[in-house]
Amino acid sequence: MIIVMQSSSTPEDTQRVIDRVEALGYQARPDTGEERTVIGVIGDDRPIDPDQIRSLQGVDKVMPILAPYKLASRDFRPKNTIIKVLESTFGGTEIPVMAGPCSVEDRDSTFAIAETLQSFGVKILRGGAFKPRTSPYSFQGLGEPGLQILAEVRERYGMAVVTEVMTSEEVGLCDEYVDILQIGTRNMQNYRLLEAVGKTRTPVLLKRGMSGTIEELLLAAEYILAGGNEQVMICERGIRTYETATRSTFDVNAVPVLKLLTHLPVIVDPSHATGRRDLVDPISRAAVAAGADGLIIEVHADPAAAISDGAQSLPPEQFAELLKSVDRVAQAVDRSLDLATVTA
Amino acid sequence: MIIVMQSSSTPEDTQRVIDRVEALGYQARPDTGEERTVIGVIGDDRPIDPDQIRSLQGVDKVMPILAPYKLASRDFRPKNTIIKVLESTFGGTEIPVMAGPCSVEDRDSTFAIAETLQSFGVKILRGGAFKPRTSPYSFQGLGEPGLQILAEVRERYGMAVVTEVMTSEEVGLCDEYVDILQIGTRNMQNYRLLEAVGKTRTPVLLKRGMSGTIEELLLAAEYILAGGNEQVMICERGIRTYETATRSTFDVNAVPVLKLLTHLPVIVDPSHATGRRDLVDPISRAAVAAGADGLIIEVHADPAAAISDGAQSLPPEQFAELLKSVDRVAQAVDRSLDLATVTA
Amino acid sequence: MIIVMQSSSTPEDTQRVIDRVEALGYQARPDTGEERTVIGVIGDDRPIDPDQIRSLQGVDKVMPILAPYKLASRDFRPKNTIIKVLESTFGGTEIPVMAGPCSVEDRDSTFAIAETLQSFGVKILRGGAFKPRTSPYSFQGLGEPGLQILAEVRERYGMAVVTEVMTSEEVGLCDEYVDILQIGTRNMQNYRLLEAVGKTRTPVLLKRGMSGTIEELLLAAEYILAGGNEQVMICERGIRTYETATRSTFDVNAVPVLKLLTHLPVIVDPSHATGRRDLVDPISRAAVAAGADGLIIEVHADPAAAISDGAQSLPPEQFAELLKSVDRVAQAVDRSLDLATVTA
Amino acid sequence: MIIVMQSSSTPEDTQRVIDRVEALGYQARPDTGEERTVIGVIGDDRPIDPDQIRSLQGVDKVMPILAPYKLASRDFRPKNTIIKVLESTFGGTEIPVMAGPCSVEDRDSTFAIAETLQSFGVKILRGGAFKPRTSPYSFQGLGEPGLQILAEVRERYGMAVVTEVMTSEEVGLCDEYVDILQIGTRNMQNYRLLEAVGKTRTPVLLKRGMSGTIEELLLAAEYILAGGNEQVMICERGIRTYETATRSTFDVNAVPVLKLLTHLPVIVDPSHATGRRDLVDPISRAAVAAGADGLIIEVHADPAAAISDGAQSLPPEQFAELLKSVDRVAQAVDRSLDLATVTA
Repeated sequence: MIIVMQSSSTPEDTQRVIDRVEALGYQARPDTGEERTVIGVIGDDRPIDPDQIRSLQGVDKVMPILAPYKLASRDFRPKNTIIKVLESTFGGTEIPVMAGPCSVEDRDSTFAIAETLQSFGVKILRGGAFKPRTSPYSFQGLGEPGLQILAEVRERYGMAVVTEVMTSEEVGLCDEYVDILQIGTRNMQNYRLLEAVGKTRTPVLLKRGMSGTIEELLLAAEYILAGGNEQVMICERGIRTYETATRSTFDVNAVPVLKLLTHLPVIVDPSHATGRRDLVDPISRAAVAAGADGLIIEVHADPAAAISDGAQSLPPEQFAELLKSVDRVAQAVDRSLDLATVTA
Repeated sequence: MIIVMQSSSTPEDTQRVIDRVEALGYQARPDTGEERTVIGVIGDDRPIDPDQIRSLQGVDKVMPILAPYKLASRDFRPKNTIIKVLESTFGGTEIPVMAGPCSVEDRDSTFAIAETLQSFGVKILRGGAFKPRTSPYSFQGLGEPGLQILAEVRERYGMAVVTEVMTSEEVGLCDEYVDILQIGTRNMQNYRLLEAVGKTRTPVLLKRGMSGTIEELLLAAEYILAGGNEQVMICERGIRTYETATRSTFDVNAVPVLKLLTHLPVIVDPSHATGRRDLVDPISRAAVAAGADGLIIEVHADPAAAISDGAQSLPPEQFAELLKSVDRVAQAVDRSLDLATVTA
Repeated sequence: MIIVMQSSSTPEDTQRVIDRVEALGYQARPDTGEERTVIGVIGDDRPIDPDQIRSLQGVDKVMPILAPYKLASRDFRPKNTIIKVLESTFGGTEIPVMAGPCSVEDRDSTFAIAETLQSFGVKILRGGAFKPRTSPYSFQGLGEPGLQILAEVRERYGMAVVTEVMTSEEVGLCDEYVDILQIGTRNMQNYRLLEAVGKTRTPVLLKRGMSGTIEELLLAAEYILAGGNEQVMICERGIRTYETATRSTFDVNAVPVLKLLTHLPVIVDPSHATGRRDLVDPISRAAVAAGADGLIIEVHADPAAAISDGAQSLPPEQFAELLKSVDRVAQAVDRSLDLATVTA
Repeated sequence: MIIVMQSSSTPEDTQRVIDRVEALGYQARPDTGEERTVIGVIGDDRPIDPDQIRSLQGVDKVMPILAPYKLASRDFRPKNTIIKVLESTFGGTEIPVMAGPCSVEDRDSTFAIAETLQSFGVKILRGGAFKPRTSPYSFQGLGEPGLQILAEVRERYGMAVVTEVMTSEEVGLCDEYVDILQIGTRNMQNYRLLEAVGKTRTPVLLKRGMSGTIEELLLAAEYILAGGNEQVMICERGIRTYETATRSTFDVNAVPVLKLLTHLPVIVDPSHATGRRDLVDPISRAAVAAGADGLIIEVHADPAAAISDGAQSLPPEQFAELLKSVDRVAQAVDRSLDLATVTA
């Protein structure tokens, strides 16, 4: 950490900063320039909270040098973390595709879409039982009966299932039924929830907050890792910007940046990252071209009749086309989509 | 709601939209222009979920005409909601000031700051027992012992207390101890938590999410109101933008906009809205000049020693100056700070 | 255009709006609902300035239905505009690559990099003679001598050249020397400059403003098209968001969105869209996978010695690798990079 | 400047950075920590372009310590710059108000509004002759005839006039007619234009770009100051964010931040900062409460008939009310609006 003193600061101010740094167990190396005094902070590898210093009199800026997360960083673990979920592997050469409806709407339609997706080779079904909705008057999900439907799909079709968990109280319940616990974008900084999934040993799909920075996203992952759960996947799903032509702005830069900073698999959700069905195919291709380790895509047998997110859900036939077009791009970067071989 | 069809849409597309609108219980009034077909939707006052329509084939845009919230809107309740908390009243002419440390650090320091604040006429103490922190390695708050300290302050000094509640499980516990339950910025869309405080009858201070829109903020309030708790205060605390000179950008426009849209009291948190101690005084003045109904400000006996948020906490003597300067502005808009008369 | 009246508006307000609409030469169709009066505006295809209506008493919202640009829209011209520049074609199956240093630094280094790039098959050289710099103390470009160097390269190597023009006064001068006139991000809304390049018949590379919306970008193109210059290429180069991990956020969604909205070629600048050399390759792949019609990339013989933008410039050997990796992705979407066949 | 090396950098990388720093005429002070090597750069007060270093191999981050502007900084000139314009003084205790229509529409209406404003005590008339418009189909201003009308107003009513200049070619012309040259938000980084007004000795009103940072704004001022024109006023006019409830987000924090960083007067434009007539009064009060040195406000005799910006223009009677309400706030911060005493 580098501490820059104000040009108007006094030697007493500087001494007070040095005392504080040393009291916190670090070494301070002051360097008095002609214009400013700058203090280097050296110590062990524990991150220091810059707030402890920033509030001292005479301090102008506090500039961290090391990342504030540790377990999530590639410096700490240079090799990719590999996460296995039933028949699929995240973080390797193959790129799993999670697909399914926004919400689990009922038993029949869920079975139907699962069967269709399986016929395309998809191995992981997504579907929401607990739905965080902006309006209290929108459909809030089926709850536990939705989880039971997912579990039945799992048993019948041998597909893994991923679903969102919204509160620490529901973690245990969801964990009984599903293979991947999803933390939604509105809950990236719901720390109680992160702690709760950190105590399980189930893979977690952690979505970036709508206005979360990459650093905050990795700190959220750190909460889960620090709880002892090493199976965390990071999901870029679009961020909030001033542009209104699309519901979110897909931060494709985040994909290679995350691959450099962390050893965790990086997933992309092109459905939410665009909010528009007609963009999901090109943006899925872009995600894979940029290095994504997995995709999660909304597919609905009849998007026009979907209870939620219909505008961004693909009908099955378009999704089948997408798989082909994306797999070609995957091959062009020496990877491939992780699809089961289907016998006609 | 207005539905605009694509220029390439067919009469069948239009009919399908009309059928859907009518199936949802509304009336559709199509208007076929030379360039586009536009369908007006008329019905009762229930908001329609635009997603139900947006996903239909041939639909270009869906433009809501009415606000998606109801109980929170000034159309629904034209007169200001008045919220009483011990000796203070929010939503009237007087402007209460909540002040205190970011975190409850220990019993002695909390009593000391409470006594100092009371000597300035402050009637409501703020202080965090459960702290949402970006890093898992930062101080997370004292928990229930912190709540007990707040309750002791309440009893000894007769001050009301406000504290943040982070998860639905903790609502009951916090509710036993405090007068105002605060929903923090990271939890504006933690719907389980909103539902939980909606079931209490305790005033709620609902903070805007770091990237929450005004509409989403009012929808979050709607969750609480729909649960039966009518005592909701809306708090602008700065939003996330590209500007890095301040930790957040205080959206002062939101103050008069909210006053037009809702009957609920509008509070401002100048400490988080700036992140810098030297800006808290001018920004508090700006907030009151723009129409704020209350302020919540971080004050610490020794900001340099604060465990959290020291950089934005004011020392007591500066806070005393602030109260004077802000009260002058309050008088200039025919209001006044709600401070107890203190006998020297 | 749809005009929504306030719930508190009077019949007189509505009549005044109708009168205004008719005075402007359009037809008004009022529809008095139970809650709100809504007025549809119908007329010829001239866009109406919503400001003409928004200011009237009793008006709540004005919602445009048609895009405010016309010549740039795909509705107006469904087929791709094809732009030929010497040996290259923009807007077709092949994807031209413009490459070269940020600034033309001197004659020798420019010739050297041109020769290197030509040996890779690159047909268009980029290089700035007039440099818009945030600080008045930074290198501002060589000016006309820089243009002369570009012209010499053009003659000697048969490469086309593209350079930025910063002010209407310099358009004539630049136009003498180069094949493509670039409008930089800071000048997207410099209307005098747009008008000036609109009067030439030279292809224009129009960069999106750092915070320009897609609609504003197309309106800027409309300025050029309205001047009679039909050869406009739209360039996405990253937008300004709250994320600081990269200099800009590459809005990859904009690529397919623009392809749907306009017939003009869509170019991507991965160097500025990331600001980091190590991201240029994956982001170039993503751009092509998403449908980009061209790339413009900063390459420098010795990035560490570059006068400007060294951090995002690629050294030649890395750029050669990029061409191979991107061409593979281009093939995967049934396109190819437009590279000259090079005889060893 | 502080240079942080990557953890994987070699001693050779470090030496290369040191060599570069010294070649640029500065001293390098390397400090090899256990985890990272950090190099302090010390030298004279010329700002170094971080790009010169960032591109070197092994460099992780370059962190500037000093501001990149000098002439604009309060460190360079601690006392407020005072700018006199006819009867008004910017930067002192009194707060001038510039008011008038968005565009000069014709002679009669301009004379009429000038007379009305003068009767309220306003000393400076605003009015656009050259209008930068997002659409090429919108009214572009009267041009020179508009300037002539302003000059006539000036002569007849003794009011100073301020108008926008859009291109370096028009600077000379505008300078003949008006007292203050305005640089609009779209031109904050139009460097040729900044250079051109830097060569005049006329006061400049420099508006912040819609997505300009405070640092970029001060660097734009630096361009003008470096040209020798010391009379620069900085104008905050709202920034672009994700919030759509208002046209812009007024960054009121910028007012006290700018007052700390620069000696130049800080003006606020509440009309553009909100885009809504009903917010101009409270936001003007907020601006003055936060420390603004001047206001520029759109007023139109009949906003509903305004050719441009009608929705944010105030009718005269509302503006008269605003002057009273804002002056009360000004008094509450020991200042006053700079209004001529009017004899009835």
